[in-house]
Amino acid sequence: MIRSGAQMARRLSAGFLSRGPLFSAGAPAAGVPLGPGTVRTMVQALPWPFSSQPRDFSLPNSSWGSEMMRLYEHYNSQCEVVTEAGERQRGPWRRLPSYNRSLKYATGGVYLSKLIQSKARLFTRNIRAPGAAFEYVVFVNKEEQRCVCVFQAGHLLEGPPGHVHGGAIATMIDAVTGTHAAYLSGPVMTANLNINYRSPIPLGSTVLIESCLDKNEGRKTFLSCKVTSTDGSKLHTEATGLFLSITVGKLLGV
Amino acid sequence: MIRSGAQMARRLSAGFLSRGPLFSAGAPAAGVPLGPGTVRTMVQALPWPFSSQPRDFSLPNSSWGSEMMRLYEHYNSQCEVVTEAGERQRGPWRRLPSYNRSLKYATGGVYLSKLIQSKARLFTRNIRAPGAAFEYVVFVNKEEQRCVCVFQAGHLLEGPPGHVHGGAIATMIDAVTGTHAAYLSGPVMTANLNINYRSPIPLGSTVLIESCLDKNEGRKTFLSCKVTSTDGSKLHTEATGLFLSITVGKLLGV
Repeated sequence: MIRSGAQMARRLSAGFLSRGPLFSAGAPAAGVPLGPGTVRTMVQALPWPFSSQPRDFSLPNSSWGSEMMRLYEHYNSQCEVVTEAGERQRGPWRRLPSYNRSLKYATGGVYLSKLIQSKARLFTRNIRAPGAAFEYVVFVNKEEQRCVCVFQAGHLLEGPPGHVHGGAIATMIDAVTGTHAAYLSGPVMTANLNINYRSPIPLGSTVLIESCLDKNEGRKTFLSCKVTSTDGSKLHTEATGLFLSITVGKLLGV
Repeated sequence: MIRSGAQMARRLSAGFLSRGPLFSAGAPAAGVPLGPGTVRTMVQALPWPFSSQPRDFSLPNSSWGSEMMRLYEHYNSQCEVVTEAGERQRGPWRRLPSYNRSLKYATGGVYLSKLIQSKARLFTRNIRAPGAAFEYVVFVNKEEQRCVCVFQAGHLLEGPPGHVHGGAIATMIDAVTGTHAAYLSGPVMTANLNINYRSPIPLGSTVLIESCLDKNEGRKTFLSCKVTSTDGSKLHTEATGLFLSITVGKLLGV
């Protein structure tokens, strides 16, 4: 599948970020883990359907458990570092924002407008209730050519009783490796996913999904991916992904 | 992933079927394709949340387009045949019912009750709005060791602009091959899925997903799967699946 739409949106819509993303859930509920102060101050109380600004789903919400928050803060704190002289500098990691339409917030010409169907939603962000389905945030490390996703699996992702559906795991692997491939190589489409399921993932748990670049060969980007427990001790799933670079014209279907 | 929960539920809850499944959407809207008369008469007007009976999602609803209905009727009409003497006999195909919990409607002892989490829902049936996400029905042909799924992809499954997410396609491949493997071999878990994406699937379209048995080797069941346009002329996706037989104890986590 063509996988770079989300990436394009991320690049094209980066200007929105500084204006502050919204949470559809409003203010986080008391007694649940909260984001750091800098994140908290960005929360606005406007209900989602009446806002023209996109919601960035990669920011903390009230459904995020303590493990999800701990890992978010671990990587987020490395997105910007302060030097000894007190200067702010870009850190080794970068958080990628995430919206519920690939191109909804992109600027584009006639070709983009043709593609926008008002009801269509990105598969991994199609459920509004926080915590019900896919809660995840992707960080990328350019120097190490590595991507890490912190993923909390909600109760609507059930496959075997009490465990995450194999298709939901495949979906996250496609999303993370596809995001990583597009970050490295520009517009791509998934050509192959080869997934080995080693150990089921309990529903409600938080896991780490790591993507590493294996090699680039012409139009081909080869990646490896692992899904593990957050301490790395348990391997849930292993996969490889092959992505083909495509032209922007092909991406837009022109 | 352990993949036989749905199958177990299908077998264990077969008794429910004769009492007539429900549609959460109530009566089909005017002007949209309707099921055959026999199906239509089974529709009951009780709203879903107040019913203790499970909804069988594999039966037609008002969101099914003409292509989905045509193929449903094609295979459904071959589930029961009438002989020259006027006797009703089982045909070559069998429709498999589909619920939104693996074990919710199963009878079982203490182990089953431990597993039932009130909010958990099967990933492929987690959205109530008809037509919004996965609309599908699976038919199995025991003699030919073949399974066919008619799948209509809703607007909430978007990946690339205007097309179905690779993860949603992987999900359907896992669901269909997993269902087929469990039908052939009893309780199984998915060990491997190897998916080649050949051509994107337009959002809203109806496609055929066919699963064929390649071989059985001890605990291993090997299957092949193809996703094609409904006339078979366009190959969208090819995949293989490897499933491992497990004990019922392992399935239930005891």
